[in-house]
Formats: sequence, structure tokens, C-alpha cells
Amino acid sequence: MRIKCIVAYDGTLFHGWQIQPNVRSVQEEIQKALKNITGENIVIHSSGRTDAHVHAHNQVFHFDSDKNLPEKQWQRALNHFLPADIYIKDSCFVNEDFHSRYSVKEKEYHYILSTNTYSPFDRHYIYQYPYGKLDLKIMQEAAQIFIGEHDFASYCVYDQYGNTIRTLYDFIISEEDGVFTFVLKGNGFRRYMVRHIVGGVIQVGAHRKSIAFLQDLLDSKGAKKCLFKAEPEGLYLEHVYYEED
Amino acid sequence: MRIKCIVAYDGTLFHGWQIQPNVRSVQEEIQKALKNITGENIVIHSSGRTDAHVHAHNQVFHFDSDKNLPEKQWQRALNHFLPADIYIKDSCFVNEDFHSRYSVKEKEYHYILSTNTYSPFDRHYIYQYPYGKLDLKIMQEAAQIFIGEHDFASYCVYDQYGNTIRTLYDFIISEEDGVFTFVLKGNGFRRYMVRHIVGGVIQVGAHRKSIAFLQDLLDSKGAKKCLFKAEPEGLYLEHVYYEED
Repeated sequence: MRIKCIVAYDGTLFHGWQIQPNVRSVQEEIQKALKNITGENIVIHSSGRTDAHVHAHNQVFHFDSDKNLPEKQWQRALNHFLPADIYIKDSCFVNEDFHSRYSVKEKEYHYILSTNTYSPFDRHYIYQYPYGKLDLKIMQEAAQIFIGEHDFASYCVYDQYGNTIRTLYDFIISEEDGVFTFVLKGNGFRRYMVRHIVGGVIQVGAHRKSIAFLQDLLDSKGAKKCLFKAEPEGLYLEHVYYEED
Repeated sequence: MRIKCIVAYDGTLFHGWQIQPNVRSVQEEIQKALKNITGENIVIHSSGRTDAHVHAHNQVFHFDSDKNLPEKQWQRALNHFLPADIYIKDSCFVNEDFHSRYSVKEKEYHYILSTNTYSPFDRHYIYQYPYGKLDLKIMQEAAQIFIGEHDFASYCVYDQYGNTIRTLYDFIISEEDGVFTFVLKGNGFRRYMVRHIVGGVIQVGAHRKSIAFLQDLLDSKGAKKCLFKAEPEGLYLEHVYYEED
């Protein structure tokens, strides 16, 4: 059977999704739980990686197992074995042609930032922007240049081989009582892409850089790099959409 | 000079307010910061202790120093040296007859509990009640028995010498979308007193114990003990009020 799961995790104490030696990863914790349940060495496949300290409200992964469990029992069994910072929100059976990464239609990321007085309670969950106010209106204007299909090479981690062309469907910025939410929807995001785009837009909101500066970076298609990368703790993988949703 | 400070701390990684050997405490971190600022070995005095993993939005402490700093500069200097889970919200000069503990007029604690689906993001900040719904109305009724002056011996940690008579001025319970807030105001609270009272009231809300059961415990003045203690992560020292406020 192929099982699809939706998982939330607090990224604070993880070095990201992917298994790496000697550090704690979400993937490893889930695979350890699956080993406890099934006795099998199961490899899980997510919709994509998330970096160290980045959170997920609804990450998606799948795996195959011969273990004969009802579909919702996978959720209960996994939550029994998983640590407190990972929570499986749903589990269901899917067809063999479903793949958590290859079948993705759209991904949605949220970035949360506060310009209010520093809060020790929010420090792992909201980026505590320490430099005063931000101009919402000019950030909303700056967001427009990223919408559509672009070569985002200037806003990704450097990789001369990968395809850096992506389509951003929507980029909405809102503010409530000094807390800013950046919502980005697209057909895919390269590593550090959300954090570089948000980092650049914040510079515009602080009146340190112009929209033309961000446009010039984008147009250079990797020849110039965005040097502003928003901190990981404000970033959430919010939703992954598939054809069948 | 005598300096009064208001401090917020995330209690998650502390073994409470008070200095103890070999563990991390809020008091020790603040005294280390004061040593860095002044070179003096300053002892600070709070409005009272908080236990391991209990939070504070507005704890109060004072200390004396010969260091000649403007009053608001103490806040800035302390925040410079303090770790990210402690934040000084204000600092001001007070008269020598002010004492953070002896001058307290009223203290206010909040307890936050969620009956919703488990959230890995709230696990250190909201008690994730795992046993289903709670009956708000009967809990509000139960709260009434605690209001006024009582011997709270049955709801404190055992201590045959201390005075366990306290006056509870107010005890308000509200609910919004499955998240319950318990607000307790009184002239003082013994160790574990809030957590035992809230723990008992939760039992009533779950229809496992009656209001008469809680009343019987209270009337026994320590002969019978409340065995239900709410978890520390939902508890916040919210405000400390003084005569001059």
C-alpha cells in the first residue's frame, strides 16, 4: 500500500527535513517511528525539503508498506512514537501513481514577521524584526515584480545545473498590529528562494533598497545575487496542493 | 540607587526563577548580566518565585547598585547581555522603601489550556489538554468557591509552618474556539496553588469530580490534599500590582 500523510512540525530543534549524519532531522524521526511500527526500513518522500528551523503546518510525505493497517491507524501509530515537535494530522491510502514531490501542483509558504517590541515567546515562531517600522504599501508594490514566470536564479542558492525557472501565482502581504504576513503561492520554490525574496522585499519596506534594485537582480538571472535572506524562524510551509485535492 | 524592572521570560528552558546549583534559572541569568554591566555581585529580589517551565509576562524584580546609569539605560544594558528567552520590558528608579516582594498588593496569574487538536507549536505555551471537551459553565461555577479569604492548605505544596491563608479577589474562566483562559487575582499565591486550583477545576469541567468534592478539599484546610496539578507550561505570571501603580 502507498500511504500519504500530512504532518506539522516545529522546526526549531531540527536541522531541516532531510536526513543528515549526526544531526536531528524530521525525516529521520518519522522513519524511526515507522521502523517501530512496521519493523521495515522505510524511506519516506516529502513534497520537498525544508531548511533548519523552518516550520511546516501541512508538509506532505508518502511511503509504501506491506503492513496491514487501516488508513487512519497510521496517523495514530506514528503520533504514538513521534516526539512532541512532530504531529501527523492525517493519513490516507493513495494510488501508486501518487508521488509527494512529482505530483505537486502548487505550494504555499507563509512568512511571519513582527515589528513590535521583542517577545521571548515568539522568538522561534515569528521573525522579530528589530529595525523599526516597515512600509506595507511599497512592499505590496514590490511583491508584484515577482508574480508570473521568471528565472529566479538571483533569489536561489547558487546552483549552476538546476533549472531556476518557476512561476509565482500569488504574493500577498498583509499587516495586523505590527505583525506582517507574506503569503507566496507558486508551482515550486528553489532552496532559499522564499527567504531571499522576502529578505529583498523587507529591504524595500525599510526604504533601504528600491523596487528597481530588486527588479534589476531578478532580470540579471543569477549574474547578481540577492544578499538579503530572511531568518528561517518566520517561515512556514503552509500547504501543498495536488491534482486530486 | 534602587532599580525596579519588569521582565518577561519564556520559562521553557528554565528550572524556575530561583538560583539553584547546576541548573539554569532566570535569577542567575539576570545576575550574570548585572555582573557584566556593573562588575558588582548584585542579588536581585523578585515578587516571588516561579516554578520550572512557568512563564512570566510581567514579573517584577528590584536591586540596588552604585553604578551611575540613567534609569532606562538599565533596560537596554540588561537586554544586551541577557539570553533570548528573557526580555526586560522596563526599568525605573524607585524609593528605598519599595520591595518587589513585600510591597506587592495583588498578583495576577493566567492559565491557558487548549482542547483542540494537538499543536507542536503551542506545546510549551498552552497546555494541550488531551481528554476532549471541558464544560465551561460548571468550571465557572466551581471557580466561585475559591473567591474570598480561605486557608488554601489543601491546594498548596505541603508546608506545616507557612501561613496558607490567602485572599482570592477574582477567578474568571473564559473560552474562545476551544482555548480556555483561567484568570486568577489575589493578594498572594503559595507554591503550586494556582496549578492545584486549576487542576481541580479541570476535573470538574471534565465531569470527573464534583464542585462539592473541591469544596470538601478546601474546607479540610490541608487534612486532604488536591492531587490534581495542572501542567506548568500553561501558566503565566501576568501582572504584579503595587500600591503606587
